[in-house]
Amino acid sequence: MTILDFTTVPAYAAPRAKAPLERVTVPRRPVGEHDVLIEIAYVGICHSDIHQVRDGWSPGSYPMVPGHEITGRVLQAGPGVTRFAVGDRVGVGCLVDSCRVCANCRAGREQYCRRCVNTYNDHDRNGEPTYGGYSTHIVVDEAYTVRIPDGLPLDTAAPLLCAGITLYSPLVHWGAGPGKQVAIVGFGGLGHMGVRLAHAMGAEVTVLSQSLRKKEDGLRLGADHYWATADGEVFEKLAGTFDLIVSTVSAPLALGSYLGLLADDGVLVNVGAPEEPVSFDLGRLLQGRRSLAGSMIGGIAETQEMLDFCAERGIGAEIEVIRAEEVNGAFERVLASDVRFRFVIDATTI
Amino acid sequence: MTILDFTTVPAYAAPRAKAPLERVTVPRRPVGEHDVLIEIAYVGICHSDIHQVRDGWSPGSYPMVPGHEITGRVLQAGPGVTRFAVGDRVGVGCLVDSCRVCANCRAGREQYCRRCVNTYNDHDRNGEPTYGGYSTHIVVDEAYTVRIPDGLPLDTAAPLLCAGITLYSPLVHWGAGPGKQVAIVGFGGLGHMGVRLAHAMGAEVTVLSQSLRKKEDGLRLGADHYWATADGEVFEKLAGTFDLIVSTVSAPLALGSYLGLLADDGVLVNVGAPEEPVSFDLGRLLQGRRSLAGSMIGGIAETQEMLDFCAERGIGAEIEVIRAEEVNGAFERVLASDVRFRFVIDATTI
Repeated sequence: MTILDFTTVPAYAAPRAKAPLERVTVPRRPVGEHDVLIEIAYVGICHSDIHQVRDGWSPGSYPMVPGHEITGRVLQAGPGVTRFAVGDRVGVGCLVDSCRVCANCRAGREQYCRRCVNTYNDHDRNGEPTYGGYSTHIVVDEAYTVRIPDGLPLDTAAPLLCAGITLYSPLVHWGAGPGKQVAIVGFGGLGHMGVRLAHAMGAEVTVLSQSLRKKEDGLRLGADHYWATADGEVFEKLAGTFDLIVSTVSAPLALGSYLGLLADDGVLVNVGAPEEPVSFDLGRLLQGRRSLAGSMIGGIAETQEMLDFCAERGIGAEIEVIRAEEVNGAFERVLASDVRFRFVIDATTI
Repeated sequence: MTILDFTTVPAYAAPRAKAPLERVTVPRRPVGEHDVLIEIAYVGICHSDIHQVRDGWSPGSYPMVPGHEITGRVLQAGPGVTRFAVGDRVGVGCLVDSCRVCANCRAGREQYCRRCVNTYNDHDRNGEPTYGGYSTHIVVDEAYTVRIPDGLPLDTAAPLLCAGITLYSPLVHWGAGPGKQVAIVGFGGLGHMGVRLAHAMGAEVTVLSQSLRKKEDGLRLGADHYWATADGEVFEKLAGTFDLIVSTVSAPLALGSYLGLLADDGVLVNVGAPEEPVSFDLGRLLQGRRSLAGSMIGGIAETQEMLDFCAERGIGAEIEVIRAEEVNGAFERVLASDVRFRFVIDATTI
């Protein structure tokens, strides 16, 4: 019998801020009482991977192995693991631990726990650096591992773990559904999931994108309307229309104009985070009791709920599968908005 | 029998932008089918009166008779009036008409109707200018008139028609009550009503004021805590504390700092409207799914509900009654924050 050792595994990492990714090996902890060792099948490339690699949210922890849209199979389960067995199809998103006792953790909102541990570019409760999913294997506590339902392919499911839940959570929280007018600002990795999800929830869905370049895709994925915001008249034409606007854009928006698109009691939710401060006229909120809000990924149970929702409706991300050695080129294409709609790395090529 | 003629009545008006108020006469329409003629007893001085007189929300309509915190008695009722009789104690707030058919009007949110008619500095549906309550009499449709319950004195009730409802509406909408941490930013005419109302609703109430100058008043009116925001440490000490913050300040706030005071899922509601744009880091909203919202006065039925709530609990404004000829001096004192907490004009002196 071969003794398997996965305490050192291949990965793609940025050795230092702004450096290209290169193939390295990184340590993984031994499989603990409640851990699963996951053989990674696919990992999505999220815009925030690039952001963090390039030290946008400093100080970054290097070498940095990005990747928090992970799917794969359980290769080994600790003795205390009750929810997963070897061979199970599983996923890991942005979080691999949290304090488990605060009000947020108890309410299933682990993403807002002040002591949550990010899948990479962070340190676990023992002070060890966390390394993400651009790797062949990862060891994760089963409490932060979700099940990929049978109906979902592992490749198109990977981006659901971040892009999917980032849109699902605010759409549910702010009541997207039949009779509701929902707009999705930006039509990239996050935005295209927003369209699919909001459409599946029964809302009337509008895409607000800079141009009409991806209009056909938008309509195919479930949008009822598709407008180019470069045409300023759109802001007059659609004034007062939307119950919910979810902005996926991390470039600074002309927020005042977008707030004017809200119906009374409408909410504009940001899931992208521009680095520069935003500026607008507060009167936009007073008129019609409008709100501006923010939302960040989702909790673990909610992520499972989202995966089940997607499996029942056959929803996955639109992806382009690449080999690991193509990752640096893929980063450039993401920055140029040249991807429909998410790159996913085939982890067998790492 | 004397024929009463109230189609021309005394009032205090600004003849043009920025001019002091002076005694004039203004026309009032004949009492129509559904109108009541009100003999005004008291009228509160709202900060927005000064703002509008000085043409802060241009273009203003002159001569301008301010006043939208009006209490008095019904002197005459049109033949179609069903809810009021001669002698009834009544009030009029910021609105005297609206379209009555839009979704907002049908839902009792007349204040957000796009065709609502302001009590002054506006034009009615016949195109005639509206003149406010710094006057001896006013003619108003009974549908936009509320009843002052017996328990409420007409003088301390007057400010409830704007300051009271402006705070009551968001406190109710965003769930102020037992177990909730509510902060009121600014402790003037609006703020002191917020403290009384939130306390009466059962919330734990904190005042955030520039200084501790009015701390004793704050505690007397129901605040549990009172902090001076000039002490920057307050923003660290109280970080993450409040479920609801209502800002009554119309000077530009350091919004980012105040958003940091919100608990997760907390809401900061602005009822004051700074003229300059606000600027802050959107990340403040993403962390903890916080919201920034606006709210404007309240609907007619909601105003009645607020008056009934106040009558049951003996809540009125803290006021200083003045004679009409003191109004220009009172304006200066309001601008200098030298009033505890609302000036009310005795309309018999007009």
